[in-house]
Amino acid sequence: MDYAQESLRRHYEWRGKIEITSRVPVKTAEDLSLAYTPGVAEPCLQIKKNPAESYALTRRSDMVAIVTDGSAVLGLGDIGPEAAMPVMEGKAVLFKELGGVDAFPLCIRSRDVDEIVKTISLLAGSFGGINLEDISSPRCFEIERRLKECCDIPVFHDDQHGTAIVVLAAVINALRLTGKKKESLSIVINGAGAAGIATACILLNYGIKNIIMCDRIGALYKGIDGINPSQQQIAEITNPEDRKGSLADVMKGTDIFIGLSSPGCVTQEMVKSMNHNPVVFPMANPIPEIMPDEAKAAGAFIVGTGRSDFPNQINNALAFPGVFRGALNARARAITEAMKIAAAQAIADLIPDDKLSTDYMIPSPLDRAVAASVAQAVAEANDNRPHKE
Amino acid sequence: MDYAQESLRRHYEWRGKIEITSRVPVKTAEDLSLAYTPGVAEPCLQIKKNPAESYALTRRSDMVAIVTDGSAVLGLGDIGPEAAMPVMEGKAVLFKELGGVDAFPLCIRSRDVDEIVKTISLLAGSFGGINLEDISSPRCFEIERRLKECCDIPVFHDDQHGTAIVVLAAVINALRLTGKKKESLSIVINGAGAAGIATACILLNYGIKNIIMCDRIGALYKGIDGINPSQQQIAEITNPEDRKGSLADVMKGTDIFIGLSSPGCVTQEMVKSMNHNPVVFPMANPIPEIMPDEAKAAGAFIVGTGRSDFPNQINNALAFPGVFRGALNARARAITEAMKIAAAQAIADLIPDDKLSTDYMIPSPLDRAVAASVAQAVAEANDNRPHKE
Repeated sequence: MDYAQESLRRHYEWRGKIEITSRVPVKTAEDLSLAYTPGVAEPCLQIKKNPAESYALTRRSDMVAIVTDGSAVLGLGDIGPEAAMPVMEGKAVLFKELGGVDAFPLCIRSRDVDEIVKTISLLAGSFGGINLEDISSPRCFEIERRLKECCDIPVFHDDQHGTAIVVLAAVINALRLTGKKKESLSIVINGAGAAGIATACILLNYGIKNIIMCDRIGALYKGIDGINPSQQQIAEITNPEDRKGSLADVMKGTDIFIGLSSPGCVTQEMVKSMNHNPVVFPMANPIPEIMPDEAKAAGAFIVGTGRSDFPNQINNALAFPGVFRGALNARARAITEAMKIAAAQAIADLIPDDKLSTDYMIPSPLDRAVAASVAQAVAEANDNRPHKE
Repeated sequence: MDYAQESLRRHYEWRGKIEITSRVPVKTAEDLSLAYTPGVAEPCLQIKKNPAESYALTRRSDMVAIVTDGSAVLGLGDIGPEAAMPVMEGKAVLFKELGGVDAFPLCIRSRDVDEIVKTISLLAGSFGGINLEDISSPRCFEIERRLKECCDIPVFHDDQHGTAIVVLAAVINALRLTGKKKESLSIVINGAGAAGIATACILLNYGIKNIIMCDRIGALYKGIDGINPSQQQIAEITNPEDRKGSLADVMKGTDIFIGLSSPGCVTQEMVKSMNHNPVVFPMANPIPEIMPDEAKAAGAFIVGTGRSDFPNQINNALAFPGVFRGALNARARAITEAMKIAAAQAIADLIPDDKLSTDYMIPSPLDRAVAASVAQAVAEANDNRPHKE
C-alpha cells in the first residue's frame, strides 16, 4: 500500500481524528440546570475553596495537553504548528485508544523558549499533565527544564523520555536473551540529539556503565570541541574509557548498537566487528541505519527497529499512554527517573520467558495489555508527593 | 430539587463533562500506519504547502477554544481559572449537543491583558474560532479588540455578543407582539457592563434610536463623570434626548426595560410608569430585577427572564452554538455585526405568527432547530473574505 497517498485520502475523509464529546445528557431543562446554570455554581465554589478538587469535579485527572511548536516533526523537520497537527491528533488517538487518556493537541505559533514556556505554564491549571512533542533540540531541554520548575503537574518530553523508556525495555530483554550482565555491557548510541541523550541517561541510571555516544563528529568524549552544552554534559558522564574515533571505530567489540541517527550509516562490516551475539537496534525512521536482513546476515543476534513491518518494533507508543495513565492515576507531580525505569521494566516483563525469542523480545504497540501494565508500574513507582487533597 | 447539592453530587459522579474521543480505528498495524506514522507525514506536508488545508485535514473546522481567566464567572465573580472549569465544560457540552461544535476549555492563569492576548494568539493555529467567556469588564473589551486584530479566526466574547443577540431576538418578537415600530421605540438598559454595552450596540445597529443606558449612578449621558471609557463611548451614541436621573426617572414612558444588572432593583411602580403594553426583560441571574408575577401584576405585557422556570427564557445558549457553527461552516474570518443581527432574526423567526404569544416569544434553548437555523443565517450573512483555499 502507498501509505502516503492512502493516508492523505483518509485524512480528507476523516476531517479530524479527534472529537470533543459530552459525557452528560442535555435533553431537559433539569439536565441544563445540573450540568450548567444554576447548579454548576456549586462545583465551582468547591474548587475555589480547594483547587485540588478540580481533579475530582472536572476532566483534569484524565486530561493531558500535547504541546508542540512544530519545529522537529517526524523526519520532516520544522514544518510549523498547523502542519504538525495531524501528528498531534494521531498522538491524541493513541493516548485515548491505548491508555484511556484524554489528550488535546496545542500547536504553538512561536519558536521562542520564553513564549512557549509562558504559554504552557499559564494553561497548566486546565490539564493533569503536559506531553511535549517534536520540539527541536537543544530548545526542548530548556523548555522541559523550566516547565518542570514552574508547573505543578507532570511534564514529559516524549521524544526524549518515551524513546528512552522503550529502548531500555528492549535492552533489558536483550540482556535476558544474551545472558550478558548489565555491569559489563557496552553500548554505542549513534545520534546525540534529544532522544540519544535521554536514552544514555536512563541506561546509566539503570546501571549500565559503558556507554559511548556518537554523533556526526564521531565518539563524544570529555573535552571534545564543537558540541552543544547538552552534549558536553552527557560526554562528561559517558565513555569511561575515553575512546575516540568514528562510529566504526567505537562499534568494535561493543555488545549493543542503538541507532537514533540517519539511514544507512551502519555497514555489515561494523556489525561483524561487534562483540559475540551482537544486538542491533537501528531505529532511524522510516529507513533504519542498517536493514534488518543485512544486519542478520552480518551476524546480528537480535535486531529491533522503529518499523511495524519488521519484528521487534521499538515504538514510543509502548510507553507514553501508560506512563501518563499511571502518573494521572497516582496524581504524581512529576514523572521521575524511577517511574521511567519502572515503565521500561513493565514493558520488558510483558514477555514471559517461554515466549521470549530474538524475533519477539518487545510487545506490540497495539497490545492493549501494555498501557495497563505500564500504568500500574508507574503509579507504584511514584515517589513524589501527591497534590494536597 | 436542590440544584446546588444535586449538581455537586453529579459532578463527582461524572468526573468531567467532556471527553476527547478518537474518530479513527487503531486496531491493526495498517490503521497505525495511516492515522500515525509513516502515512501521517503526507497530510502534514500538504498543510505545510498550504496552511488553509488544516481546515480539511485536521479537526480545525469544527474546533473552538473556550477561553477564560475565571475573573467574572456566573454571578460568582473572580473565582480563578481552575474553579471556572465546570462552567467552561458545561459550555463545551452545549456547543457540542446544540451546535455540533467541538469546543475545548482553556482556563488561563493570568489577569494580565498582554499575557492573555499573547497566549490565545499563539494558539490560534490549533482552532477554528475563539469563544471568550467570563472575563471581567473592562479588560474583556481590550482583550477582544486586540485578538480580533491579531488573529485570523473569529473571536467572540459570548458575555457581550451572545447576550446581545438573544436580547435583540426577544426585542424583535416584542415588536411583533406589541405592533410598535423600531424607529419610535424607547428602551432602557439597566447595567452598563460588557453585556449591557454590547446589547445597546446591536440594538442601535438594528435601527432602534432611543436607547438609554443606566448604571448605579443613574442614566448615562454625554459628558457624565465617573464612568469608564467603554461607558463613555456608549454614552456618546445613546440617550439622544439627554435624559438624566435615576432608573425610576428614565423608565417613565419607556417601551422596553432590559435588565442586565442586579436582583430586585425594579419596582412595580416603575413598571406602571412605562408606556402602554410595557415589555420587561429582567435578566439578572438567578434572581431577576423584578419577579415575573410582580411585573405582570403591575401591567407588564410581556416578561422574559434568564431563568428556565419561567416562560420566555432569554438564554445565550440560543445563540453561541449556531453562531460558531455558521462561522465555521462559512470559514468566516470574523463574526460581524451583520452576522449577529442575522442570528437574532433567525432566532426570532423560529416562532411563527400563529404560535407567537406573550408567553411564548422566544424558542427554548433545548430546541435543536435553533442552532441549525442560526448557523444558516450566520453563514449566509458572512460578508468577510474567507481564508484562501
